[in-house]
Amino acid sequence: MLENMNEKCAVVGIFGHEEASKLAYFSLHALQHRGQEAAGISSADDKKLHTIKNRGLVTRVFNEDKLKTLKGSSAIGHTRYSTAGDDSILDAQPVFARYDLGEMAIVHNGNLTNAEEIRNKLIQRGAIFQTFMDTENLIHLIAKSEKDKLLDRIIDAVTKIEGAFSLVFLSRTKMFAMRDRHGFRPLSLGKLPNGGYIVASETCAFDLVGAEFIRDVKPGELLIFEEGCEPVSMQILEPTPKHCIFEYVYFARPDSNVFGQNVYQTRKEMGKELARVKPVDADIVIPVPDGGVPAAIGYAQESGIPYEMGIMRNHYVGRTFIEPTQEMRNLKVKMKLSPMVEIIKGKRVVVVDDSIVRGTTSLRIIKMLKEAGASEVHMRISSPPTTDPCYYGVDTPDKEHLIASRMNEDEICEFIQADSLAYIDKEALLKSVGADKDENYCTACFTGKYIV
Amino acid sequence: MLENMNEKCAVVGIFGHEEASKLAYFSLHALQHRGQEAAGISSADDKKLHTIKNRGLVTRVFNEDKLKTLKGSSAIGHTRYSTAGDDSILDAQPVFARYDLGEMAIVHNGNLTNAEEIRNKLIQRGAIFQTFMDTENLIHLIAKSEKDKLLDRIIDAVTKIEGAFSLVFLSRTKMFAMRDRHGFRPLSLGKLPNGGYIVASETCAFDLVGAEFIRDVKPGELLIFEEGCEPVSMQILEPTPKHCIFEYVYFARPDSNVFGQNVYQTRKEMGKELARVKPVDADIVIPVPDGGVPAAIGYAQESGIPYEMGIMRNHYVGRTFIEPTQEMRNLKVKMKLSPMVEIIKGKRVVVVDDSIVRGTTSLRIIKMLKEAGASEVHMRISSPPTTDPCYYGVDTPDKEHLIASRMNEDEICEFIQADSLAYIDKEALLKSVGADKDENYCTACFTGKYIV
Amino acid sequence: MLENMNEKCAVVGIFGHEEASKLAYFSLHALQHRGQEAAGISSADDKKLHTIKNRGLVTRVFNEDKLKTLKGSSAIGHTRYSTAGDDSILDAQPVFARYDLGEMAIVHNGNLTNAEEIRNKLIQRGAIFQTFMDTENLIHLIAKSEKDKLLDRIIDAVTKIEGAFSLVFLSRTKMFAMRDRHGFRPLSLGKLPNGGYIVASETCAFDLVGAEFIRDVKPGELLIFEEGCEPVSMQILEPTPKHCIFEYVYFARPDSNVFGQNVYQTRKEMGKELARVKPVDADIVIPVPDGGVPAAIGYAQESGIPYEMGIMRNHYVGRTFIEPTQEMRNLKVKMKLSPMVEIIKGKRVVVVDDSIVRGTTSLRIIKMLKEAGASEVHMRISSPPTTDPCYYGVDTPDKEHLIASRMNEDEICEFIQADSLAYIDKEALLKSVGADKDENYCTACFTGKYIV
Amino acid sequence: MLENMNEKCAVVGIFGHEEASKLAYFSLHALQHRGQEAAGISSADDKKLHTIKNRGLVTRVFNEDKLKTLKGSSAIGHTRYSTAGDDSILDAQPVFARYDLGEMAIVHNGNLTNAEEIRNKLIQRGAIFQTFMDTENLIHLIAKSEKDKLLDRIIDAVTKIEGAFSLVFLSRTKMFAMRDRHGFRPLSLGKLPNGGYIVASETCAFDLVGAEFIRDVKPGELLIFEEGCEPVSMQILEPTPKHCIFEYVYFARPDSNVFGQNVYQTRKEMGKELARVKPVDADIVIPVPDGGVPAAIGYAQESGIPYEMGIMRNHYVGRTFIEPTQEMRNLKVKMKLSPMVEIIKGKRVVVVDDSIVRGTTSLRIIKMLKEAGASEVHMRISSPPTTDPCYYGVDTPDKEHLIASRMNEDEICEFIQADSLAYIDKEALLKSVGADKDENYCTACFTGKYIV
Repeated sequence: MLENMNEKCAVVGIFGHEEASKLAYFSLHALQHRGQEAAGISSADDKKLHTIKNRGLVTRVFNEDKLKTLKGSSAIGHTRYSTAGDDSILDAQPVFARYDLGEMAIVHNGNLTNAEEIRNKLIQRGAIFQTFMDTENLIHLIAKSEKDKLLDRIIDAVTKIEGAFSLVFLSRTKMFAMRDRHGFRPLSLGKLPNGGYIVASETCAFDLVGAEFIRDVKPGELLIFEEGCEPVSMQILEPTPKHCIFEYVYFARPDSNVFGQNVYQTRKEMGKELARVKPVDADIVIPVPDGGVPAAIGYAQESGIPYEMGIMRNHYVGRTFIEPTQEMRNLKVKMKLSPMVEIIKGKRVVVVDDSIVRGTTSLRIIKMLKEAGASEVHMRISSPPTTDPCYYGVDTPDKEHLIASRMNEDEICEFIQADSLAYIDKEALLKSVGADKDENYCTACFTGKYIV
Repeated sequence: MLENMNEKCAVVGIFGHEEASKLAYFSLHALQHRGQEAAGISSADDKKLHTIKNRGLVTRVFNEDKLKTLKGSSAIGHTRYSTAGDDSILDAQPVFARYDLGEMAIVHNGNLTNAEEIRNKLIQRGAIFQTFMDTENLIHLIAKSEKDKLLDRIIDAVTKIEGAFSLVFLSRTKMFAMRDRHGFRPLSLGKLPNGGYIVASETCAFDLVGAEFIRDVKPGELLIFEEGCEPVSMQILEPTPKHCIFEYVYFARPDSNVFGQNVYQTRKEMGKELARVKPVDADIVIPVPDGGVPAAIGYAQESGIPYEMGIMRNHYVGRTFIEPTQEMRNLKVKMKLSPMVEIIKGKRVVVVDDSIVRGTTSLRIIKMLKEAGASEVHMRISSPPTTDPCYYGVDTPDKEHLIASRMNEDEICEFIQADSLAYIDKEALLKSVGADKDENYCTACFTGKYIV
Repeated sequence: MLENMNEKCAVVGIFGHEEASKLAYFSLHALQHRGQEAAGISSADDKKLHTIKNRGLVTRVFNEDKLKTLKGSSAIGHTRYSTAGDDSILDAQPVFARYDLGEMAIVHNGNLTNAEEIRNKLIQRGAIFQTFMDTENLIHLIAKSEKDKLLDRIIDAVTKIEGAFSLVFLSRTKMFAMRDRHGFRPLSLGKLPNGGYIVASETCAFDLVGAEFIRDVKPGELLIFEEGCEPVSMQILEPTPKHCIFEYVYFARPDSNVFGQNVYQTRKEMGKELARVKPVDADIVIPVPDGGVPAAIGYAQESGIPYEMGIMRNHYVGRTFIEPTQEMRNLKVKMKLSPMVEIIKGKRVVVVDDSIVRGTTSLRIIKMLKEAGASEVHMRISSPPTTDPCYYGVDTPDKEHLIASRMNEDEICEFIQADSLAYIDKEALLKSVGADKDENYCTACFTGKYIV
Repeated sequence: MLENMNEKCAVVGIFGHEEASKLAYFSLHALQHRGQEAAGISSADDKKLHTIKNRGLVTRVFNEDKLKTLKGSSAIGHTRYSTAGDDSILDAQPVFARYDLGEMAIVHNGNLTNAEEIRNKLIQRGAIFQTFMDTENLIHLIAKSEKDKLLDRIIDAVTKIEGAFSLVFLSRTKMFAMRDRHGFRPLSLGKLPNGGYIVASETCAFDLVGAEFIRDVKPGELLIFEEGCEPVSMQILEPTPKHCIFEYVYFARPDSNVFGQNVYQTRKEMGKELARVKPVDADIVIPVPDGGVPAAIGYAQESGIPYEMGIMRNHYVGRTFIEPTQEMRNLKVKMKLSPMVEIIKGKRVVVVDDSIVRGTTSLRIIKMLKEAGASEVHMRISSPPTTDPCYYGVDTPDKEHLIASRMNEDEICEFIQADSLAYIDKEALLKSVGADKDENYCTACFTGKYIV
């Protein structure tokens, strides 16, 4: 867990706008599906950096008064996802530090595979670590680099780290954005209406603040933002793209473009492929909301079977800690998902979801559909079987908890009590995302082949 | 506003279950789309009534400890919607009273059209009113009735009130459920797994607690629940059904059955009708989520034009009070709804919504779609033009703020900057809900013909 | 408990000041020692009444915005003390009602001894009771009175109730203040700097808002406040003063004048008397803070034994729910009160408190002092033994829990492990409060002689 | 401000008790008068350190569940005072770090005068600083020391820092307590009932947890706590005592013993001295509560003038943000302090306070007393004029805001509108604290003579 702290987060950087922190705030708003546990923004006003961060939703952490204290024309922000249920406020980002060249702040999405090794080396050299975030390695590497200029030190630092990282650095006068050589996590560059720049984990942030998409930051590329100049690009690391294919399957917002493709379109394509892979004679196609919606639409379009909203998602859930009565079966799933009995009753149903992790939720959903009167339930999954955990920042359970690691499709089908089950295979998935070969994507969660 | 306090709320009653208040709690959970401002439950344990009510979501008002104090095998609950932005905690329900026959509690969904008249009469006779809820009239009428038995007094009281009311009464040993003679607001009867009974505003509450739908409470019918007996039915008022057609258009949850029809199916039918009414040559059909989804699916099925999720709803919104920057246009709508640029760009789009009230939101959505690159935007509304305010419990603005009260369809189309606009007409709407004539429905919001 | 809801509260009324609700707010601030559980204010602006009330401290219930909505030049306020630990927000005051003459609001300090009887009669006549406050009786009596004018109705109502009541009524244009014929609870009249008027439970409220004390409202007197007039006085009830002597002993703030005497001075006098009653050879006199301070000062002055702050009160307590460890003895009292070991060690200590209720706290304090090294501890109580519960609004436990109801002084002395114990007797207490006979005071808690 | 972050805080260390964190919690409770802004505890369970810290009162930061996660038989705690009104949660203590020898946590009361210099050196050597606390210097010095053992490194570190520090260090198995060579801030050693040890800023913490005072930690002394051993004492720094005399004047709780003297007794002695210094013919002696109480008692005892509680402190204040009306004069002081008019009216009053900083509060109090009718007001201050700011951890304003830095006593007397004013002089103050010469105390705030 310690090594997994930066998983599935989001970063943003704003450069050259007099209300930089406000734009960072709204960008974080659009990126909250990647993490709601903590949020933070650092801004720079030439003289010094200002940082506010705390646990909780971005709307709870900030208000107009707080944003006003985050002065300056550049700002970086972070929203954090974590399953670590402790009070570790210290583990919110940005990470701020005073060091020999002044002040810096960093936001980081991803996780470093050699974090422990680096930390141990740094600690041997007298460094202290006050948090459990990989990101702390970076500020040490920069502070301890023997180079004179921040740019050179950043280069020094990022050549030493391995793993997944989409980083934005802020100094008093400059901003730097960097992506690991695999381009594991997304990071895009956009232009603000006033001529300033934005980098963000997903393009959905651009839409909200009125920015225009320019291009993705390239794997291994460092972008340098300085007043009065266009962003300068440096190819620091040899690019060997290994984009996380799960961003398409589940993480990214459907209205974002990541790795050069629109997420919704890609998911629809997966659904179409699914319809071709294992056709089934059925009456309706329904999604498990919200994740399965685009693939279910694609499935319906390809198969000609009518698309229906057969399961409703309840958005007023809130957290309840009330124990159900004995007779209330499947309450946990029913609080969130309600079956449309009138739609389902007596029907042969194709139900589309993005993935199966432990299998228990799928089982609950299928039971619920059968109780609602479905005559047949055919489960279709718009990704290959998830057989292996992710070490690059996805919060997956251990291999033994992944149902596909110990059962084949037939066994899973039986376990979840479906009448049939189909996944798409890796090749089809790659085709959906527009790749003819898998070289450019990390598919370790489906193959166990990790980038070493 | 004073007369409108009980609008769009939900009621529930549980009889004959040792965890009655818990079942009421979960039922209110399922009914929160009808009101999140306040929640309350009264239970009866033969000796006395217990009441807890407060402002806020049902999950905030109750916890396990509080539910435990709501002892007894019967319980009634209420969740309240109100635009009255004050601190009127007193206006939460159930309304509890001690009176000459003991104790009673009432929950009420609807609003009384002769409330003021009754109140004035009661006040002339020395009654005092401590809240601004119509419901207070009822407890007075029951307390002041000269009949000896509660049943007779309830009959006395409900024959004196007019307007919309779905009521549940609770005494120490009995429960009563009553619907106005028009059956304006829905109220259904179900059976609990243990043999007890449930009445609720919408059937979606039944599903969550594992209850089975028996039938709707009939317009003008009083149901009496007493230990050891089947519910006794009495037809108190001459039934003259005038169901609120807006329950189908917007209020009710799609997985509920109201007035004998499934809401989702009905909405889909409206969408199909819309496709027939004013066909258009277009590339995609998209809903305004979430209200427009079923009708858009119906439209797509009927027209053969592909259904797409062209607008995404952001569920992590929360309330933000941060002022946008100058350049951030349409922020208010964009915080909630994001256009799927890749889907919309260059497309002729049919966008389906359930209704147009003021017109400003439709305008913002269409602008947003055009900025996203839609070549044409055709607005389709799955109800007739909303020309008149509702006096029976719907929170509509005054007539002058209803765009359809002062503009015809062409003018509205121009105002909202659509390429074309179509509504369904009243007849089609009635057909969608399975009615061949409008006698059984209140369509005053489309016709101005109010039930006297 | 039901009958005891209005005990030890405070009321205030402001008439003739454009910021009436603000003055009521600050007055409630000064009166919070009489109740911190709930607070409320009603104001009148000729057209209508405005009410805000809620649970919690006055600072939590109100803010500048809320006070602004409480428009008008008159206002009444209430701060409530209650041991009823439920969610009975309904039981906050003012009680507001619409009735045949318009609108009224009432605040009430005291409790009615014939509340149940009146309620039963009213209920027989068709009234309903929505709360458990005695105050609800009053609005019914006023509403049901057959007189035409509010003044006459108030007279009607207050002649029907018995018990303790300091009341302030507010209508759209007038304010009325009334005290029961015994003058049980205090109520004083003051003049605002701008010429307006204030009535309040204690004069300490006057000081904060800059008002000048005029006189006490007399037992049985009704004061009528109307625009453009001096307050009109009417002697409604035959005055038979029975002031609650416990106001002097414990309730009232030392800087208040109640019943014509300054509280601090009176308490000091009790302490002096105590020094005369049972002298003891000791080294220091210390109070149990804060209640025992004035009497301890008086004791020291009379006896010549040096006054010392031998026990410190910890004001940063807050509520802690942490279980102590095994070895932490007397934690409950030590969290609040710390012994000044250096002062106490080896000393013969006279410790002065205002009263002994159950005896357990006195025991803990004496143990604490002995552990701190006191060679002798002589307990002195500035009131007679509390032998009987109060039925007029004081939150005392049942008779069997009052240690003085079942033990004589020697037994109590032994129980609390004191080296000696002395109370003052009733006569001395009366002398301290300036009364030569007890006719004018209720001393039932010391004598069991209740006013019928 | 940056350099002043650790001022007037409190530290505690518990060693050898299975509920160490709970004892730390209760100790912090007793120490909250030294800081209520943030609180934190680190515990050690041989395997690792556990830390919880946050803004807010100790009761708000911790609950039973959280304390349970702070496992282990040793714990250190901190409660922080700061005027820095920002969101700097990072600046709460303990400061935790992983470093080459494992994990450590530190709490610190005081502030380092060479913090900037050390930090700059450390930064030149590649260190990064993530907070603005002096304490961060210490963990760097320890981490970067070339010694092999923690003990040697602590010695290394504390010989490099200058200024005021009472420190407690925690490692997985040991605890260390250290005081600067001046013994600026208090730090005492006590024994727990079970045989374990406690160190704390003030002895009032001992009383609450049942610990017995052993002795003060000596200036320059390091205490080493290790399982199975008595605490080992090492005199690390040459002791040159310069105890902060303001601890006696204002900071410490009266029931604490600091620097070998009881605080209450010392303050009383100051009051007695004051009575001798400038006698005045007066009727009563009153304190400004709570600070002036012990000195006023001393003054009264020495002068024979009766002691009275002439000003009452209102403990239910809470924060109000309501603007007063025009006529409400002196509201700010009156919300907290109420004059006992009956006591003061017509009297010649001696009012005793601990110090005068800006002079404005004294002015308000004297005005209030005169409005209450005092015929004369004689101000007596139980310390010398505060002429110079403190650089060792006291939150005093700049020299120009200290009234005594620019006015002599006569001018101050005129400014605060007193009839007479007297301070005690430095020699008398020293005598009060039992010192015959000033060598052992820092009196810089009265003399401007700072320890270099």
